[in-house]
Amino acid sequence: MLNFCLFGAGRIGAIHAANVAAHAHANLRYVVDLFAESAQTLADKYDAQVTTVTQALADPEIHAVIIASPTDTHADLIEKAAAAGKAIFCEKPIDLSADRTRACLEYVEKAGVLCLVGFNRRYDPNFSAVKAQIDSEAIGKLEMVTITSRDPSPPPAQYVRSSGGLFRDMMIHDLDMARWLLGEEPVEVFATASCLIDPEIGANGDVDSALVTLKTASGKLCQISNSRRAAYGYDQRVEVLGSKGMAQAENQRESTLVVTNASGAIAAKPQHFFLERYAAAYQRELENFIQSVQGKEQPLANQHDGLMALVLADAAYESASSGRVITL
Amino acid sequence: MLNFCLFGAGRIGAIHAANVAAHAHANLRYVVDLFAESAQTLADKYDAQVTTVTQALADPEIHAVIIASPTDTHADLIEKAAAAGKAIFCEKPIDLSADRTRACLEYVEKAGVLCLVGFNRRYDPNFSAVKAQIDSEAIGKLEMVTITSRDPSPPPAQYVRSSGGLFRDMMIHDLDMARWLLGEEPVEVFATASCLIDPEIGANGDVDSALVTLKTASGKLCQISNSRRAAYGYDQRVEVLGSKGMAQAENQRESTLVVTNASGAIAAKPQHFFLERYAAAYQRELENFIQSVQGKEQPLANQHDGLMALVLADAAYESASSGRVITL
Amino acid sequence: MLNFCLFGAGRIGAIHAANVAAHAHANLRYVVDLFAESAQTLADKYDAQVTTVTQALADPEIHAVIIASPTDTHADLIEKAAAAGKAIFCEKPIDLSADRTRACLEYVEKAGVLCLVGFNRRYDPNFSAVKAQIDSEAIGKLEMVTITSRDPSPPPAQYVRSSGGLFRDMMIHDLDMARWLLGEEPVEVFATASCLIDPEIGANGDVDSALVTLKTASGKLCQISNSRRAAYGYDQRVEVLGSKGMAQAENQRESTLVVTNASGAIAAKPQHFFLERYAAAYQRELENFIQSVQGKEQPLANQHDGLMALVLADAAYESASSGRVITL
Amino acid sequence: MLNFCLFGAGRIGAIHAANVAAHAHANLRYVVDLFAESAQTLADKYDAQVTTVTQALADPEIHAVIIASPTDTHADLIEKAAAAGKAIFCEKPIDLSADRTRACLEYVEKAGVLCLVGFNRRYDPNFSAVKAQIDSEAIGKLEMVTITSRDPSPPPAQYVRSSGGLFRDMMIHDLDMARWLLGEEPVEVFATASCLIDPEIGANGDVDSALVTLKTASGKLCQISNSRRAAYGYDQRVEVLGSKGMAQAENQRESTLVVTNASGAIAAKPQHFFLERYAAAYQRELENFIQSVQGKEQPLANQHDGLMALVLADAAYESASSGRVITL
Repeated sequence: MLNFCLFGAGRIGAIHAANVAAHAHANLRYVVDLFAESAQTLADKYDAQVTTVTQALADPEIHAVIIASPTDTHADLIEKAAAAGKAIFCEKPIDLSADRTRACLEYVEKAGVLCLVGFNRRYDPNFSAVKAQIDSEAIGKLEMVTITSRDPSPPPAQYVRSSGGLFRDMMIHDLDMARWLLGEEPVEVFATASCLIDPEIGANGDVDSALVTLKTASGKLCQISNSRRAAYGYDQRVEVLGSKGMAQAENQRESTLVVTNASGAIAAKPQHFFLERYAAAYQRELENFIQSVQGKEQPLANQHDGLMALVLADAAYESASSGRVITL
Repeated sequence: MLNFCLFGAGRIGAIHAANVAAHAHANLRYVVDLFAESAQTLADKYDAQVTTVTQALADPEIHAVIIASPTDTHADLIEKAAAAGKAIFCEKPIDLSADRTRACLEYVEKAGVLCLVGFNRRYDPNFSAVKAQIDSEAIGKLEMVTITSRDPSPPPAQYVRSSGGLFRDMMIHDLDMARWLLGEEPVEVFATASCLIDPEIGANGDVDSALVTLKTASGKLCQISNSRRAAYGYDQRVEVLGSKGMAQAENQRESTLVVTNASGAIAAKPQHFFLERYAAAYQRELENFIQSVQGKEQPLANQHDGLMALVLADAAYESASSGRVITL
Repeated sequence: MLNFCLFGAGRIGAIHAANVAAHAHANLRYVVDLFAESAQTLADKYDAQVTTVTQALADPEIHAVIIASPTDTHADLIEKAAAAGKAIFCEKPIDLSADRTRACLEYVEKAGVLCLVGFNRRYDPNFSAVKAQIDSEAIGKLEMVTITSRDPSPPPAQYVRSSGGLFRDMMIHDLDMARWLLGEEPVEVFATASCLIDPEIGANGDVDSALVTLKTASGKLCQISNSRRAAYGYDQRVEVLGSKGMAQAENQRESTLVVTNASGAIAAKPQHFFLERYAAAYQRELENFIQSVQGKEQPLANQHDGLMALVLADAAYESASSGRVITL
Repeated sequence: MLNFCLFGAGRIGAIHAANVAAHAHANLRYVVDLFAESAQTLADKYDAQVTTVTQALADPEIHAVIIASPTDTHADLIEKAAAAGKAIFCEKPIDLSADRTRACLEYVEKAGVLCLVGFNRRYDPNFSAVKAQIDSEAIGKLEMVTITSRDPSPPPAQYVRSSGGLFRDMMIHDLDMARWLLGEEPVEVFATASCLIDPEIGANGDVDSALVTLKTASGKLCQISNSRRAAYGYDQRVEVLGSKGMAQAENQRESTLVVTNASGAIAAKPQHFFLERYAAAYQRELENFIQSVQGKEQPLANQHDGLMALVLADAAYESASSGRVITL
């Protein structure tokens, strides 16, 4: 039985708490959150205790921590947990600064602890199936990757500043997906972006619509399309082209209902947002973490992946600002 | 160059006229219709002449006739054309009476002329593709056939009497499709039907919604679903189950457009009715006829198929009336 | 917190045990099974105790029982639980004999306990969505129902005797679905069936391929297609036609992957069997039961529904044997 | 009746000849081709005469010309036809040089003749349906356009030089589609490309895989993906995102067949290449030309559109070579 401490009792923390509680070999022992009430509610639900960072990390029976607290606490918590020898499951990003992230990585590697970074989409069964097609060369030699990622609706305009902006907050998932599917590091990044949806987002110095183009050393190409608004729900698709064919992962729909009437054949909408779409992914992510702690698997995304996606996001930001291609 | 005479200048006659005119090896020489105006309009469009049955059949340069006149003229015209030694392309049915049809068949066979009966759906590229799956045993040994056939809207209630009723007018196509796909004669027929759409149809002694179940000697099963109304257009699908898998032919849509919005993912409707859906089938049907006249192919459906579909329709009618299974 | 006793620790019992354990307001207290080892394993997994029927029903803190034991124990267990005043969740069928079922129903009704019968498909989100289309009259007035239900592979031939045969074991789900979707009792039943897949099934007096046609008093029509083998997995679809359109629930696929290559565009298979396809349905079924015990909902399927589906199955069996339409 | 002269009796010339011959109000009078045999074969098929450029243009009964000859003859033939006052239907591109194209445009405009440039995809019923969604604002305000265009297999490597390369030969269609769908001129072009399929293409100075990003003055974004090889056939899709939803035009399949077996649900492949996919588009294109000659419509793409697509292709070429964004 693996004992967990959860840092952060918000929306994403609640998902991880439920998955830990439902897992046959995991136990949620502690919940830590600045908001005592949130912590208590979640702890009560799963028979866990509310405690502090220091006490949780001092408990020798805690094997692992899940960091789902605000972004600016991630790197510190990682280092503290590493110092205490705990296995670490950290929500992305490690930090919004690549330098701070690099320092944190050194710390983790010196401590020799396991660190999984929460790029949950690598665990989505649909994207996994695409990755398996690439790895098995069922579609031949990979040539192109196309990633479409659109949120159902834009966040409050104020959020965009604290989040690091579209490239570091939202597209970072797609940049990670690109690295994972390409199987090779991008060496050129081009980004262009607009504020088409909410002028307030522009007023806060960010964009809401963006296209990024990546190229690897061997010439593989990738394009990413991001929008902060898809009136039809969460739009999460990937498509890969190889010498022998194409593999696509389509959106998951709310149901398999199709109504056909004078307007056409109307299939159900894509699932609304990440809680629905990635429910299975979060479970598989926890499973991968537990298997990794037990030495039976490797994390599908580790601290290095956390850094590299941020480096690409920074490059995209620089390209969009300067209008130049960025070479890595 | 094959010279044609067309009997019947109505909607279906016009389709055949256009296909003959566009064919590299066919020529429309005569058009015959009781309505002189219709005949003249069609003849003018394709540089043909209006004439009479007698004169057309007396012309030794006429090689083939297309019979697209009212149903009650079919058998007589077939016999006259057979007597004149012309190749015959006749719209279904040969006649609404099985006895009259049998007599006509004897005549045709004695005359030794070619006769194609217009079960146009056998020529539909989608249904052809399903048939090829069965014939190649790609889906293994055939076990079940499901046929869905729904018109966009019911005909005028008065029409149902002259037409022979739903089973002889509409389902006859599906009964032919069943025989063709099953590759074996049905030996048991069960039908049940209702008047759910237009009470006037019921008042005229017919039904507008019907289900038929067929069984062959080897135990293969088939179900047919007919409705006189599909609010979404012409619904024409078949599905076959074999020991190794299933093959389906879906509806053809008006375009490949899919609009995804807050209501769902809305694909275009099925094509409206038979002129659109079976445009390619009518061309392929004429091609098969011309190839058959030239001795290079056999008609995909001949006079015998015309009779057998009528026999099944009669059995369905009897079953629906009596509430009994009819054994053939 | 609702305390449960589970009768039957087999495959379906294990599903219910997991769902009870994961439910915030339910607790699995007892597991009862003739096979002590199965009972113990399941009990250990969820911190429950192994006990006997008598002791479990004698515990006043047990509020509800789940009956997932062999079919021939269902009616007795229902009556014992009813006598003890427990709420009852019983897997279908109540019994293979309609008379025994009727007696059991009287007992339950006299006892005044709640009884939910496990027609799990009513809880499938896809079929629920179709039902909602009918109830809201979004597709207008319902006219026709088409149900396709095929297992991935046939059971051992010996099983068919004890199971009551295809109509009572397998199609009973579809007959229940038909009643539920039609919203009206069938008054005519016609069945035809063959043994096309496994001759051993025929040697054991059963069939493996069957078609059933139902008609209601108002003339609504329904057709059901059953096969014991679908090489592509579990095939579970419904289609309903109304005056304003059609609603369909398609199969759920293993993933949204589509691979397009020289063979075509290959989408993932339907989910393999009922454990995968109906995972969400089993959760929603338990939820409905718990809500019903708390007086907030009614069971979606009760003991009366259990009886009526069996009556239809018996009628189908009689029709297939006699070749006659059965009027109810 | 409109009398046509066709310049060029190759593959695309043959399509136009067939469409002219089948049109109720058009007549193919002359065929001109350097290869006398090709010209004669086509002329014989449609009862036309073989002649020379000079004689054809001198015939006052010729109303219109179709230019389907090699690219380097287009501009000269346009000018000669314009001088003779004929209506002009010219295959794209007008010329591979933007300067030569500009000169030709001046000539055409001075002559005041009608000129349609053969961007056939604007006439595709599927893309038309997407365009109608944009124009009606059914998807709200347009924000993003995604165009996927892949040929079934690469051309001979030698062809790429004479063709002007991937951007001017192949992507020019997509650049025109982008302008048409965006409804606004792109002001920034970024291109990146690789030679991943055939090294011979690279040795001849061209690429076979390319991504292009466009941005308009109002900030609308567009991405185009091109590959010279799609193992599954001709891949021609567009997707547009607006404030209220998304519209997509999917590939047209060879048939509606779906085979479901242990490998999955296998739909038919996309239609093989442009002759199949754009058969309807070529007919509608001719119809638009004829209606335009009769003063009832305007060409959907004229000489100005021919120039603008070339300017974008040149910019893409420059961007891919220099690694810079090109501002127009």
